[in-house]
Amino acid sequence: VATPEIDGQRLWRSLMEMAEVGALPGGGCCRLALSDADRDGRDLFVRWCREAGCEVAVDRVGNIFARRPGSDAGAAAVATGSHLDTQPHGGRFDGAFGVLAGLEVMRSLEEAAVCTVAPLEVVVWTNEEGTRFRPLVGSGVFAGELTVAEADELTASAGVRFADELARIGYRGELAPGERRLAAFVEAHIEQGPLLEAAGVPIGVVTGVQGIRWLRVELTGRDAHAGTTPMALRRDAVAGMAAMVTGLEEIARAGDAELRLTVGRVEVSPNSGGTIAGQVRFNVDLRHPETATLERTEGEIRQLLQRLAGARSLGLGVRRVLARPPVAFDPELVDQVRAAARRLGHGTREIVSGAGHDAMNIAGVAPSAMIFVPCRDGISHNEAEYASPEDLAAGAEVLLHTLLAKAGMGP
Amino acid sequence: VATPEIDGQRLWRSLMEMAEVGALPGGGCCRLALSDADRDGRDLFVRWCREAGCEVAVDRVGNIFARRPGSDAGAAAVATGSHLDTQPHGGRFDGAFGVLAGLEVMRSLEEAAVCTVAPLEVVVWTNEEGTRFRPLVGSGVFAGELTVAEADELTASAGVRFADELARIGYRGELAPGERRLAAFVEAHIEQGPLLEAAGVPIGVVTGVQGIRWLRVELTGRDAHAGTTPMALRRDAVAGMAAMVTGLEEIARAGDAELRLTVGRVEVSPNSGGTIAGQVRFNVDLRHPETATLERTEGEIRQLLQRLAGARSLGLGVRRVLARPPVAFDPELVDQVRAAARRLGHGTREIVSGAGHDAMNIAGVAPSAMIFVPCRDGISHNEAEYASPEDLAAGAEVLLHTLLAKAGMGP
Repeated sequence: VATPEIDGQRLWRSLMEMAEVGALPGGGCCRLALSDADRDGRDLFVRWCREAGCEVAVDRVGNIFARRPGSDAGAAAVATGSHLDTQPHGGRFDGAFGVLAGLEVMRSLEEAAVCTVAPLEVVVWTNEEGTRFRPLVGSGVFAGELTVAEADELTASAGVRFADELARIGYRGELAPGERRLAAFVEAHIEQGPLLEAAGVPIGVVTGVQGIRWLRVELTGRDAHAGTTPMALRRDAVAGMAAMVTGLEEIARAGDAELRLTVGRVEVSPNSGGTIAGQVRFNVDLRHPETATLERTEGEIRQLLQRLAGARSLGLGVRRVLARPPVAFDPELVDQVRAAARRLGHGTREIVSGAGHDAMNIAGVAPSAMIFVPCRDGISHNEAEYASPEDLAAGAEVLLHTLLAKAGMGP
Repeated sequence: VATPEIDGQRLWRSLMEMAEVGALPGGGCCRLALSDADRDGRDLFVRWCREAGCEVAVDRVGNIFARRPGSDAGAAAVATGSHLDTQPHGGRFDGAFGVLAGLEVMRSLEEAAVCTVAPLEVVVWTNEEGTRFRPLVGSGVFAGELTVAEADELTASAGVRFADELARIGYRGELAPGERRLAAFVEAHIEQGPLLEAAGVPIGVVTGVQGIRWLRVELTGRDAHAGTTPMALRRDAVAGMAAMVTGLEEIARAGDAELRLTVGRVEVSPNSGGTIAGQVRFNVDLRHPETATLERTEGEIRQLLQRLAGARSLGLGVRRVLARPPVAFDPELVDQVRAAARRLGHGTREIVSGAGHDAMNIAGVAPSAMIFVPCRDGISHNEAEYASPEDLAAGAEVLLHTLLAKAGMGP
């Protein structure tokens, strides 16, 4: 039995080979969930896992479980993994890194002929990105957030059913989701933000995922002629929206450094150069690691919107369309990630994930944690997404040692 | 020879009959320029004019001239008129009122057997609204703003040529535009704004048309994840746009009562709820009756945009895409409108037109003026557009008396 070691070059080559499946001209990837490209990526992963000595099982929503047996046949698996689907103009690392880092762990253990006590699994969760269907479906079903029947009936914009697409690409399996219990789940992922790069460390010890709330705001004023309507007689929904977005920025500035407040979607009607707009709809995206702050800030936002709408005689509708509470990862598992990084001599920074991940769902049914590595300029969901081979290898190393510590080395 | 009198009920019935051509379910009209409905509206107008004893001629861009001869065969015509084309969800009065008020003048003169010295003409200008092609084409060609050849080559969004559509509906005439010189042009129109209604008077004495400038602003920030990007590291184009629109409102508030400043069109990219937007494009619509104010305000706007873009590290592009100088109507003709209204006992208010009109073009080649009547709540370009039969009759009466004063009563 040798000491297992991550082969950073092998990991990089596998990432680049996976990136050829659905490759885009700008260097990115398009593997939309349950598309032909998603199938091809899954097929490639399954072949690699079998070559690395794993047994592959698929559940009824298409989650793939590649298992490396342990010495204790009755023990629940210590799992890792992420997703292989991408955004329409996605990068090469979001999701694929977590999956292929897991594969690299399996390969390095196989090479060193190491046997763990608990079995290890690499999981590919179906449809994390939610570009065609809603996001986080595979891990959501696994964690009981939605049922198989509900997932089956999800439809993409073209009216295609989730169940039909899943069968079409050959990934409707037999396993009942959640049947296979996990002893732990550790997901490696690129940060998708700028904090690790700014701190100059390769490893983010992720303590949890911040909570998120989405408000959908609708302002109703009155369409009127831009040339004939005096300023004082207007009910201008664009001017109202602008005052509100400016006010939201002030709320964000007054908050702590972890508060995130974004208006990224604005729709104006009739949206004509010479017409004062009678209607604007916009989205407010609010995130913070603490529920109390989310609650208080949402209250401030609603007061601001009401005050400004009233002052401008605009009709106001505010609907909360999404609310996910913050998730705290398992403290013991988080400590194991930190300890592994320290033993390996990698600099770390504690970080709360700003984005949603499959591990956020799995945390509801198994002790979970995440390992982040930096990505250049914090850019993700973009063909320009990039992480260095060195940082990716460091992340895979920390993953290997965390999984080994959790699963136990065999006799 | 009797005293000619406007028949308000006949005018209203004709307006309602014309409104059936291209009628919409919400009570409005859709007669897009050079469409089948435009042809049907023109045919109806031509039939009515012939029944009222007029000779009808059509020029090469489809402008229709319905002439009632005067006693001086060599005199240039005193003209009135407007347009019959509408917005896609247009009202029953915008354009049609000016055309049918002119017809009502002809009918009342015919009925009273009055002969004027100069001939009178009612003109239908082709394509004022510019929904399919650019606006103000017929009057623009008449005034030399563009050539027949340039008009011919204009294309609608479906790629159809102006010339082909004009021939298709049977309104490519023989007359060279501008060949027929006008002694004066007086256009009656609904105000399309709230000032006359607020003043409680039926007649607006229009002294001119305000100038207009359009700026097209493009902001470039950086797309980034709304959950992972700290507030301080963002280059958020939506937040920048909001600050700019709020700043523009302050510029408008600091200006005089005649200043109009509007952002009615905003386009956000990628316009996704969870993504900080990297790009926003918006239009600034600036109007004022004086060139000096337009010039100074445009300077202030450009300074504001540059200052805010700089402070937010946003790329900024500002392009002036439209500039029409203010138009002052012929003072003598404006006085004749005012005098006619006073003689008839109608309350008046001086007004500068906030919207563009055919008379704005004709003012470049003939003494011109306009008569406004109130429209309910200032609403126009909307199926709900409404003007009362009484106010419309008053406007037609003032038109009759202004034209008579200008053309002179025959022996």
